[in-house]
Amino acid sequence: MKSVVQIVEVGPRDGLQNEKKVFTLHQKYDLIKRLSLAGLERIEIGAFVSKDWVPQMSDSTELVKKVLAAQASGELPAKIRYSTLAPNLKGMELAVQSGIKEVAIFGASTETFSKKNINCSIAESFVRFRQVMDLAKPNKIKVRGYLSMAFGCPFEGKVDESRVVRLVRAMLKLGVHEVSIGDTIGVATPAQVESLLKKIKKIAPLTRIAMHFHDTRGTALANVLASYRMGIRVFDSSVGGLGGCPYAKNATGNLATEDLMYMLNGMNVKFAGDVSALIDMRSWIQSTVDHELPAKVSKAGLPLKGTL
Amino acid sequence: MKSVVQIVEVGPRDGLQNEKKVFTLHQKYDLIKRLSLAGLERIEIGAFVSKDWVPQMSDSTELVKKVLAAQASGELPAKIRYSTLAPNLKGMELAVQSGIKEVAIFGASTETFSKKNINCSIAESFVRFRQVMDLAKPNKIKVRGYLSMAFGCPFEGKVDESRVVRLVRAMLKLGVHEVSIGDTIGVATPAQVESLLKKIKKIAPLTRIAMHFHDTRGTALANVLASYRMGIRVFDSSVGGLGGCPYAKNATGNLATEDLMYMLNGMNVKFAGDVSALIDMRSWIQSTVDHELPAKVSKAGLPLKGTL
Repeated sequence: MKSVVQIVEVGPRDGLQNEKKVFTLHQKYDLIKRLSLAGLERIEIGAFVSKDWVPQMSDSTELVKKVLAAQASGELPAKIRYSTLAPNLKGMELAVQSGIKEVAIFGASTETFSKKNINCSIAESFVRFRQVMDLAKPNKIKVRGYLSMAFGCPFEGKVDESRVVRLVRAMLKLGVHEVSIGDTIGVATPAQVESLLKKIKKIAPLTRIAMHFHDTRGTALANVLASYRMGIRVFDSSVGGLGGCPYAKNATGNLATEDLMYMLNGMNVKFAGDVSALIDMRSWIQSTVDHELPAKVSKAGLPLKGTL
Repeated sequence: MKSVVQIVEVGPRDGLQNEKKVFTLHQKYDLIKRLSLAGLERIEIGAFVSKDWVPQMSDSTELVKKVLAAQASGELPAKIRYSTLAPNLKGMELAVQSGIKEVAIFGASTETFSKKNINCSIAESFVRFRQVMDLAKPNKIKVRGYLSMAFGCPFEGKVDESRVVRLVRAMLKLGVHEVSIGDTIGVATPAQVESLLKKIKKIAPLTRIAMHFHDTRGTALANVLASYRMGIRVFDSSVGGLGGCPYAKNATGNLATEDLMYMLNGMNVKFAGDVSALIDMRSWIQSTVDHELPAKVSKAGLPLKGTL
């Protein structure tokens, strides 16, 4: 059965990157294997970025090779689309060498965040993206674009919609297959989501857009609902809600995959993945990250059979 | 400025009733005073129920008298509508004596929950409600009806919509001014909410309906959004998300008032009450209930000015 909504599981990358506890290669592979066997169809598993900046991702080459070998041998399902971040030429060269067939570039909606996060202006970041795209094409690697801080920036506050629309257009023009629009600090409400998507719809089909919500202020699922009704069919989420919010201490970051699945199930929207299998992972992940996970469905459990 | 959405703050009753820590009269009054000065317009402050069953509410008579005296003296704003539960004749007699001008009856959507929670069948509960209504009229007391477990029951599972519609009609026929429909175990998703409200709309104007969501599985604000778009203009919530879920250990219960306000603010929907004042109450409430509150907005804080 084909999915109506695609879930892009970002726990092993976006999630772990924002956890204090650094997973070993073995633990990461274990997480990815569990997610894969839970039926997820797209999983972001690593990042080819500087070891000094993001030590959690320093073993991505080894990890990608292990995952792809396991996929080739049949230990992991063949149909799963694994991906990594490859934000610049150096990262992309490593991505090519690793054998991964999908990568993502990562841009910001505001100059201040771009400078603080990726150490260059937005214009400079697009020069880097161009280099990534140039290497992607001959190697037949699909590239996704992330556009972070699209609704609010911890440094600049409210973000101008027309600027976000321009950046979405610029990313699509680069040749990315999809732009994932991020509410990176979890400030968006449904009205803002709808307002932005109405403007984006004028310059691109919403089938090219994914939404990446954080549940920092409890609005993630309401924003998913609003986006879904506007026509969005790809959502990013993180198992257990892995990964906090670096801009609000102890607050929730990524929307939890279980919570997203629970709502989609209740709305009879088909997707790939088994919510029960993810719930079963809770105690293992918690013992590994060493804190309680924010995901609500795995905390409360599924209701009686027939209620879901 | 008139509210477009009315928030019914249920923290001092529904919230505290489900907290282990029993507040003293002084602490309850303090909570109510803080909520009142935060600008809320409707606050449920107590319950005239058996002390043996609900020891947390045993001082409701004294508390109501204190609150009403403070309101008469100008210590608390005159315009606030305070209310209590008065689920049966005995409770209603106490309510009349206390001087409160708004009460609520509490019914269930399933026979099993009715028996377990209020120790009688649904039909028997309506006999009790009739007695409450008969005493309310000569005393000019407004009565609200709660209909709990309207989307799922911990004992019976999925709840038949036509049964809920029948019970809503029966409550309205009794003469309640409003029926608050409760997703008491937090299982509803937007599609279910819309489906039920479509049916209710056929038998009553939605201005007579309030929605009472629990955020147990993260869907509360998505359900508020769906309800609001259907025409619902009254929502129950609890400051900080006070009150857990008695049917799922350590899970979230009531939707947090701060989270509700944050979303409404972002959607430019007018309501009475200041989200910052509620956020400021967090540490005091936490130290009094002795655990972390689930409200997300007060945990993460408001974003930079201009982002909200």
